[in-house]
Amino acid sequence: MAVRALSEGLAAPLSDADATAQSMADASPAKWHLAHTTWFFETFVLRDHVPGYHLHDERWPFLFNSYYEAEGQRSRRDRRGMMTRPTLAEVLAYRAHVDVAMAEALPALAPAAGAIVALGCHHEEQHQELLVTDILHLFSLNPLEPALWPAARKVPVALPGPIGWIAHPGGTVEIGHDGGGFGFDCEGPRHRALLTPHVIADRTVTNGEWAAFIEDGGYADPAWWLSDGWTWVKSEDIATPLYWERRDGMWTRFGLDGRRAIDPAAPVTHVSFFEADAYAGWAGARLPTESEWEAFAASHDAGDGNQTDAAGPVEPRPAITAPAPFGDVWEWTGSAFRPYPGFRPADGAIGEYNGKFMSGQFVLRGGSCATPRGHARASYRNFFYPHQRWQFTGVRLARDL
Amino acid sequence: MAVRALSEGLAAPLSDADATAQSMADASPAKWHLAHTTWFFETFVLRDHVPGYHLHDERWPFLFNSYYEAEGQRSRRDRRGMMTRPTLAEVLAYRAHVDVAMAEALPALAPAAGAIVALGCHHEEQHQELLVTDILHLFSLNPLEPALWPAARKVPVALPGPIGWIAHPGGTVEIGHDGGGFGFDCEGPRHRALLTPHVIADRTVTNGEWAAFIEDGGYADPAWWLSDGWTWVKSEDIATPLYWERRDGMWTRFGLDGRRAIDPAAPVTHVSFFEADAYAGWAGARLPTESEWEAFAASHDAGDGNQTDAAGPVEPRPAITAPAPFGDVWEWTGSAFRPYPGFRPADGAIGEYNGKFMSGQFVLRGGSCATPRGHARASYRNFFYPHQRWQFTGVRLARDL
Amino acid sequence: MAVRALSEGLAAPLSDADATAQSMADASPAKWHLAHTTWFFETFVLRDHVPGYHLHDERWPFLFNSYYEAEGQRSRRDRRGMMTRPTLAEVLAYRAHVDVAMAEALPALAPAAGAIVALGCHHEEQHQELLVTDILHLFSLNPLEPALWPAARKVPVALPGPIGWIAHPGGTVEIGHDGGGFGFDCEGPRHRALLTPHVIADRTVTNGEWAAFIEDGGYADPAWWLSDGWTWVKSEDIATPLYWERRDGMWTRFGLDGRRAIDPAAPVTHVSFFEADAYAGWAGARLPTESEWEAFAASHDAGDGNQTDAAGPVEPRPAITAPAPFGDVWEWTGSAFRPYPGFRPADGAIGEYNGKFMSGQFVLRGGSCATPRGHARASYRNFFYPHQRWQFTGVRLARDL
Amino acid sequence: MAVRALSEGLAAPLSDADATAQSMADASPAKWHLAHTTWFFETFVLRDHVPGYHLHDERWPFLFNSYYEAEGQRSRRDRRGMMTRPTLAEVLAYRAHVDVAMAEALPALAPAAGAIVALGCHHEEQHQELLVTDILHLFSLNPLEPALWPAARKVPVALPGPIGWIAHPGGTVEIGHDGGGFGFDCEGPRHRALLTPHVIADRTVTNGEWAAFIEDGGYADPAWWLSDGWTWVKSEDIATPLYWERRDGMWTRFGLDGRRAIDPAAPVTHVSFFEADAYAGWAGARLPTESEWEAFAASHDAGDGNQTDAAGPVEPRPAITAPAPFGDVWEWTGSAFRPYPGFRPADGAIGEYNGKFMSGQFVLRGGSCATPRGHARASYRNFFYPHQRWQFTGVRLARDL
Repeated sequence: MAVRALSEGLAAPLSDADATAQSMADASPAKWHLAHTTWFFETFVLRDHVPGYHLHDERWPFLFNSYYEAEGQRSRRDRRGMMTRPTLAEVLAYRAHVDVAMAEALPALAPAAGAIVALGCHHEEQHQELLVTDILHLFSLNPLEPALWPAARKVPVALPGPIGWIAHPGGTVEIGHDGGGFGFDCEGPRHRALLTPHVIADRTVTNGEWAAFIEDGGYADPAWWLSDGWTWVKSEDIATPLYWERRDGMWTRFGLDGRRAIDPAAPVTHVSFFEADAYAGWAGARLPTESEWEAFAASHDAGDGNQTDAAGPVEPRPAITAPAPFGDVWEWTGSAFRPYPGFRPADGAIGEYNGKFMSGQFVLRGGSCATPRGHARASYRNFFYPHQRWQFTGVRLARDL
Repeated sequence: MAVRALSEGLAAPLSDADATAQSMADASPAKWHLAHTTWFFETFVLRDHVPGYHLHDERWPFLFNSYYEAEGQRSRRDRRGMMTRPTLAEVLAYRAHVDVAMAEALPALAPAAGAIVALGCHHEEQHQELLVTDILHLFSLNPLEPALWPAARKVPVALPGPIGWIAHPGGTVEIGHDGGGFGFDCEGPRHRALLTPHVIADRTVTNGEWAAFIEDGGYADPAWWLSDGWTWVKSEDIATPLYWERRDGMWTRFGLDGRRAIDPAAPVTHVSFFEADAYAGWAGARLPTESEWEAFAASHDAGDGNQTDAAGPVEPRPAITAPAPFGDVWEWTGSAFRPYPGFRPADGAIGEYNGKFMSGQFVLRGGSCATPRGHARASYRNFFYPHQRWQFTGVRLARDL
Repeated sequence: MAVRALSEGLAAPLSDADATAQSMADASPAKWHLAHTTWFFETFVLRDHVPGYHLHDERWPFLFNSYYEAEGQRSRRDRRGMMTRPTLAEVLAYRAHVDVAMAEALPALAPAAGAIVALGCHHEEQHQELLVTDILHLFSLNPLEPALWPAARKVPVALPGPIGWIAHPGGTVEIGHDGGGFGFDCEGPRHRALLTPHVIADRTVTNGEWAAFIEDGGYADPAWWLSDGWTWVKSEDIATPLYWERRDGMWTRFGLDGRRAIDPAAPVTHVSFFEADAYAGWAGARLPTESEWEAFAASHDAGDGNQTDAAGPVEPRPAITAPAPFGDVWEWTGSAFRPYPGFRPADGAIGEYNGKFMSGQFVLRGGSCATPRGHARASYRNFFYPHQRWQFTGVRLARDL
Repeated sequence: MAVRALSEGLAAPLSDADATAQSMADASPAKWHLAHTTWFFETFVLRDHVPGYHLHDERWPFLFNSYYEAEGQRSRRDRRGMMTRPTLAEVLAYRAHVDVAMAEALPALAPAAGAIVALGCHHEEQHQELLVTDILHLFSLNPLEPALWPAARKVPVALPGPIGWIAHPGGTVEIGHDGGGFGFDCEGPRHRALLTPHVIADRTVTNGEWAAFIEDGGYADPAWWLSDGWTWVKSEDIATPLYWERRDGMWTRFGLDGRRAIDPAAPVTHVSFFEADAYAGWAGARLPTESEWEAFAASHDAGDGNQTDAAGPVEPRPAITAPAPFGDVWEWTGSAFRPYPGFRPADGAIGEYNGKFMSGQFVLRGGSCATPRGHARASYRNFFYPHQRWQFTGVRLARDL
């Protein structure tokens, strides 16, 4: 119920129109996130495991199935924004209806269904983060540049000192989910990985450091870029992180609190893998592999990183002192998103969860300011295409020893 | 005030989301139509002719200018649907604000400004028709196929008899707006045109006749099609008028009252110029030229054709007996939309009204069921690209004598 | 035989590779022109009218049919450049084979077949012009900018004086082909047209005058452009006629003799309808209608305009004194390419000749330096889309009186 | 000289037109391959290391640089087919000129330059394979389906028995180039990799087995496909390997000897990573990782696999008995093409060799029938995008133990 309530809290400042518009094919309407997460429970728990349950509306599975081929036909992904009806209010009523049915059903659910309930909650947390980033993207296209929330009060923070480097001697480590507690299918099986000796940064790259990369001509020199990245930079006219603009001689960024000056002490965000990789080369470093990252995370206190506890202002904060693996920004790794040794998708529609996305994408680790607290863990594997950057994505550097 | 009220009446059944979504680049959100027509009065009357008027919001001209290059920068046409804010309620408040200012200003306006007020009203009527057709297109993409209005009560009507042909002996006629009453720039100057002897149909083509064209393989035989039309048919997979679908062995169409069986006695609508031209060839006829059409219209009583008197169900009705040039459907002519001899655009931004669209489009005449009554006249020139068909467009045949 | 020989003369400087490449979907390989014109004779004369004729190669009709739907399947237009085989030599052998068969067949051909022979010759002349302009386009994409022919020797010519204006009082004129001698289907029927009083320029616009339009910011001011034209200018980054480039502070153009300085006294060429229309507005004039143009041409001596007599350098020459309707450059008119009153396409595949192209294109009149002499006439209607400009297209102005 | 001669041998059956055409952006003209490989020697050896050397033509580096940003401007990749000049004969003369200069220079070259000569030879071998596959693709678009070479004489071969599985116990292995002999930059550094226990097939998948996958509906069932693969299958209408067509009820393929029936005993080829991965899933297996593959290859005799010894018919042959890691078809692995631990690109233009392609592509191993013998080795890493399949690409299966 806490998970369900957070979704509604995040959507609370949205008008019916805000919740309906789809700003690009990669993004979905907020209303759709609210309904799709509900469809997940209705379909895989109530329909499949609760005898006598009647669908809230027979036509809605067609509307709110995302990509489950095994669940049959569905509405076109790039037309989600055309569904001005059902309204936001009707979708909220759908949520209430399913929540009541779930509350009734939970006590008597079989363990197999219970596992799907847990999956459904973690699934909904993923969509909470997408809801926030999708609204940010939508609002960025509005010439009025509206703010979803007022800006958080901020205490000026000193620029962090130079990056400190945490050494690892290399050798065999165990990575992957160990089966205790919840984990997504792609996080396992737990297995051994071989690391080479290396160092990893004790903090992520800041806005101030990124501005230096820009001023050094980083976006104009092909030497720093992967070939596909350079093609992307030229064809899309990329010269800054997403949402940055130079105004009155100053770097600004658009955020959920509107357009404001960048904070040079805060982690850079909304950069693509291509940008992260180019920056790393320029800085004489590289991106960590996901195994290196996980070894680092497993040996450092998760602390109280900047993640989402409740609906409200979301923004990366100035870097804090202690090495904190979680929060603020997702960290691009140099690892392609591929199956771990021994990985097998589950049977049935649920089996489509992560396995079918294992080409063309790169792994990100750590969790961001828009990640519900408790959602991420050391073994958590997020993934996006190398050009995507509307998530809160950032950079942690590494180097060979 | 009557014109302004009709816009609001048409928008009354719309939710904030309905009014915000943009279904394709050719269409605009209802909210945008409501605001843009208001911007027209605010800019060209209040700002330009009422000393001391303050803009309702300094940032809104950027949002609601359509295509007036002389009025400076404006938001991207294909991103109108991203403006979830201002809300529908705020736009309605903008309308009220401008209406009050206009009511105050009207008594003292100079004649030049008075002419712009008249233009603004006719301009708004054009957008009323677009508002209705754009909503229809948007709703057609919603898998739920919602109805904007309940269906009108219908009395079954017998199929019309064969087309009757009205003869014209040819010779010189006068066409174009004569300067009495309002006319758009492109309707003049009035001038002589030379007609060849011909006949023109006393009614438009019906759904039933169109179904026969389909069943005879009309969409599959290149012999009937212009080369560009055939390319369009193949690349877009066109096999019926827009919104038609075969369901349970019957032809249905989607309309503002949802999906229903076609009425074989009613005029076919939502056909492109390419389709109209192909049909005419198949039927052993041709499309009339715009001069022929105007000569026909000028000599027949406009009658009480099926046009819009008030917000409510809009749909072509079964053909009536007397030759009625106006209403039900816009009629494609065989004439490219080009300037009349002696045409000159007005000076300034207003001069961008129609002249700059005079390439690539074809003239339609007559007015449709979605045209506010009184808006169309014999000299009225509507125009669309030959593939467009989301307006209520239909076909009247002609033949050489 | 003279027509056939000219084609081979034009192709003589081409390598097998030159003759095979296709530079864009609008253009065709020279080899294809040579073969397609031959296929026309083989199909519509030899196959249809000469008993016992055997096709040179059963597979080639598939290769060399252009757009005749009634003649069945054909190779994809945009893949003509992939046909590296048959070779140029094999295509020349095909030509020789068909020429022999035609020479044998001619004496005994029925009149109906004789008419097709005449059509075939005029058809081949059309392709001769295309062959030349398509090679020019191809060579323009080669960074080496090769010349097909050496430059013609030139005598410096003084700039022409201001345009002289030839007046027409308006009234009814006869236009269209009168049935004497050869004419394409779209040139008739001959019919009366109504002209308004106007003047037409006694020469076409020069390169020097066009340079003044550029320097006045003509390509950067939307006021001069049709809406579709402005979209084209922005999306294609158009700032000069095709093949113009500024080098070392001077305007140059690429031509069949390589890249050279523009001649300010010569007619501007390789401009689109959009450019022609924008220029006319900037110059306080308009384009003539095709009826006005034909009335002008019919009353002026065709003279010995600059057209193609033999294979060799082709380029618009400095304007000569007497009003010369034919040669140097095709002249854009303000008339959309639509059927004349009473036009009916012929039956069968031949009927696809011109009628099916009667949407979206504009009429050009006059003939160019690349038109075989004798091909054009006062009633001749050439047509292209308003953005196309790889033909030798130019501008003659007109004005209302 | 042997390497240089093989290029010319492969190009010997080509006409000037064959050698000039570019069939898609991924492919290059044969003439371009011949010239580009020559440019490599001319630039990085003769220009950089031979004092007094004059470029054969100052303008040609612009034409024949491929992607070396550090070498400055170059012609557009997608317009290589527009370079009908220089001719094939001129390019062959360029080759001869550079060969003579190289022969003179070789004895006195510094070791650093000698290393570039070796790189140049291996570089040319890569382009030899591309030349062959690019011609195959070009010829496949010619409706005449020409053969480059006559078919090799074939002895009918029995279908192979079921796949035999070679077990590996897992554990640490060394992979990567060991520094002895030539290796490309991306093959090193040699490093340890951790394998899990698995089996790998003793032969590749055959055409006959692939036909069973097709007949079982493999291309129509999303369950077998990666999400990106399924999108590709739907949007490109993929239903067979490239070049396969059903004719007269039989599976045929187009090859360098024209169109012929498939040999069910021969390895399937011209399949993409997406297809390979889908097939593996359908067959209850997976693709090997590149480390697994290299461990397998390192422990098996390379034998005399089917690779290119001389210009002439090239085609995968029926599978032979002994496990043969090299030849017939490149084998897709499940490994993304990413840098090995400690990889650093070289300095300067040569540094652009492989490193900048390390995103979005998958590794292939083994070498094909079109690979010059001696070019591939156990550590060799080939790479293509997951949808590409115009190379001779095939499938070897693996399974977890």
